Amino acid sequence: MVYIQRRETFSASHRLFNSAWTDEQNEAVFGKCSNRHGHGHNFQLIVTVKGTVSSETGFVMNLVDLKDIMMREVIDQVDHRNLNEDVPFLQGVLPSTENLALAFWARLSPAIEARGAALHCVRIVETENNFVEYYGE
Amino acid sequence: MVYIQRRETFSASHRLFNSAWTDEQNEAVFGKCSNRHGHGHNFQLIVTVKGTVSSETGFVMNLVDLKDIMMREVIDQVDHRNLNEDVPFLQGVLPSTENLALAFWARLSPAIEARGAALHCVRIVETENNFVEYYGE
Amino acid sequence: MVYIQRRETFSASHRLFNSAWTDEQNEAVFGKCSNRHGHGHNFQLIVTVKGTVSSETGFVMNLVDLKDIMMREVIDQVDHRNLNEDVPFLQGVLPSTENLALAFWARLSPAIEARGAALHCVRIVETENNFVEYYGE
Amino acid sequence: MVYIQRRETFSASHRLFNSAWTDEQNEAVFGKCSNRHGHGHNFQLIVTVKGTVSSETGFVMNLVDLKDIMMREVIDQVDHRNLNEDVPFLQGVLPSTENLALAFWARLSPAIEARGAALHCVRIVETENNFVEYYGE
Amino acid sequence: MVYIQRRETFSASHRLFNSAWTDEQNEAVFGKCSNRHGHGHNFQLIVTVKGTVSSETGFVMNLVDLKDIMMREVIDQVDHRNLNEDVPFLQGVLPSTENLALAFWARLSPAIEARGAALHCVRIVETENNFVEYYGE
Amino acid sequence: MVYIQRRETFSASHRLFNSAWTDEQNEAVFGKCSNRHGHGHNFQLIVTVKGTVSSETGFVMNLVDLKDIMMREVIDQVDHRNLNEDVPFLQGVLPSTENLALAFWARLSPAIEARGAALHCVRIVETENNFVEYYGE
Repeated sequence: MVYIQRRETFSASHRLFNSAWTDEQNEAVFGKCSNRHGHGHNFQLIVTVKGTVSSETGFVMNLVDLKDIMMREVIDQVDHRNLNEDVPFLQGVLPSTENLALAFWARLSPAIEARGAALHCVRIVETENNFVEYYGE
Repeated sequence: MVYIQRRETFSASHRLFNSAWTDEQNEAVFGKCSNRHGHGHNFQLIVTVKGTVSSETGFVMNLVDLKDIMMREVIDQVDHRNLNEDVPFLQGVLPSTENLALAFWARLSPAIEARGAALHCVRIVETENNFVEYYGE
Repeated sequence: MVYIQRRETFSASHRLFNSAWTDEQNEAVFGKCSNRHGHGHNFQLIVTVKGTVSSETGFVMNLVDLKDIMMREVIDQVDHRNLNEDVPFLQGVLPSTENLALAFWARLSPAIEARGAALHCVRIVETENNFVEYYGE
Repeated sequence: MVYIQRRETFSASHRLFNSAWTDEQNEAVFGKCSNRHGHGHNFQLIVTVKGTVSSETGFVMNLVDLKDIMMREVIDQVDHRNLNEDVPFLQGVLPSTENLALAFWARLSPAIEARGAALHCVRIVETENNFVEYYGE
Repeated sequence: MVYIQRRETFSASHRLFNSAWTDEQNEAVFGKCSNRHGHGHNFQLIVTVKGTVSSETGFVMNLVDLKDIMMREVIDQVDHRNLNEDVPFLQGVLPSTENLALAFWARLSPAIEARGAALHCVRIVETENNFVEYYGE
Repeated sequence: MVYIQRRETFSASHRLFNSAWTDEQNEAVFGKCSNRHGHGHNFQLIVTVKGTVSSETGFVMNLVDLKDIMMREVIDQVDHRNLNEDVPFLQGVLPSTENLALAFWARLSPAIEARGAALHCVRIVETENNFVEYYGE
């Protein structure tokens, strides 16, 4: 079993905000992350796929295919977008980095399995100091 | 003459948009950077100050003072903000990285000169691939 | 189960030295790391916390709280300090990066558990080439 | 159980090419990675060793010893080499990053075990976007 | 006058070799960089363009245009290539990083001037320790 | 005229302290940088050499020679040392990063000129946020 990783980046804005709460509650929990007009990040998405190495190609999975899946399923949907407003698959989701990881897993996993490989980890780098990882369970 | 540099970071959203143009013109020039609800970045601001080295302190300028100026004049104003909506000193400014560099220079230079040093360069890192520098003229 | 990570940095000096040994033994095992007046590093501390995602906040744990714990329990104690001389909780500990990881775990784990989350990993970056990880067992 | 990591770098060229295939098949699967005269990378090799911490040294394993093993078993063999042509232990191996990880594991693991420690992971960074990890099984 | 920078990467192989010299002379001057089958790097190309900021766009030059020029004039020619064998505009050039900077300048400068801007610097990162800059004179 | 750069790293400890001052004055100016037992950093030294490109070698200066000069004149003297106590050429120098840049220039410049090239810049990275540059005048 070998693990391969591919990194892609996207630039997006978001606002942490629970619509069931008052502005004061939002401010108390989310602080400046809850500012009305949002803020943004250069996010990094690192996807880990596990599998056996093909004796014919030396690959667990062709990275060209993995890149195509990441672009189609995630990056093209979120790059240069507002994560609260513009992304159909995030409608109704509070766009914390944790919830992004869960939502990206749900889109990436079936696409990767359809290529005969298995998604192992979704890692999101939000800033140089904050990171989230999800392993599917 | 020695040059010292201090790096600070901020996370902000913006939209490239010329209000004198039609939506089609904005789309043609700015592309996805003009999406209606904005997008965002983890910006880095690197300030270079030049001066002579004090024989008493070994410093061109105390970096604690430089950090305080950067925080007060720029970072506290723009971090976790929407650069089109939330920043008084950017009102009416198209928030391209070039224009940010010019606007930050205008705020930083007098504050640094008031400490007896001279601002040499404002550098802004927008993404890992895009950078702007301004030297004051 | 989602994993969140927070990075903080500290600059400290240390000396690798076993007081039960002769100078020759220390030199043979620790080499230049045992130089009498010490040396130093910009350490990075990366803490991983695991937990479930709150439906109200989208958080495993508020990163503001995690940062506060890291600052109070570790960074404020070790930043700009000599790890052999200045840190009460390291008295009698040979300050190798391995032992730092163990000592930081002992302080961080109860503080994080008191917030209802679980410490998963303490990672220390000593130089761009040397790293240590501890998972608590 | 504590995990220590050591990073070393090497610059090498390679060509992805299955000699049992036609040029068209190679081009279809490997694309530009199959160009006739090869291309190259600054690879990073990150080795993780696990073990208990010695009360005498504070070390899982002396990093000087780990570095020596990495240099002798891998880096000196592959640095500034063509991985298809110049490396005896890669003869007959399609030099994908996956296969490099497997081949490096086979050389590193016995040498590390001979020092009383255990190899946990071989990680190879091929570009800033592509990575492979192997855990030995 | 504002300076903008764009970074692109390419992976290539090369061999430092003066065909007017004996193998011994090449070995003496170039060492392992002269190994017969070549080696390779992940190069970074950072291009600096200077100009005034347009009041309409806030741009010195549209980075989309700069990226297109960099891709067409340099990256598409050298990425995943052998710099000694595969690149028409490098025929007869000893592909040291210095000579790459000169050759890239010669191709980039007219293309950038044709867009009404001026090339200021070509910077090439060969490894994390080696860099070259050329300012056109 | 082409500029080449070489990066080397060193890990050292220091204390910012003016012996002509009281402890209170030192504390007021240098803060935690003046703690009695010192602290430390992973410093990076980046040296820029300018010159013309040899038609025989494609080099401004052989980087092997530049590396040897950097190691002999600076790195071997300061790596894993206490900059206040252990370095003969820093005796009596307040080891601020500014003063390190001046002292390193004084040692590097004659050695580089003796090889027929010219030192252009000494850059020191103290932390990921603090940098100093000196151009010799």
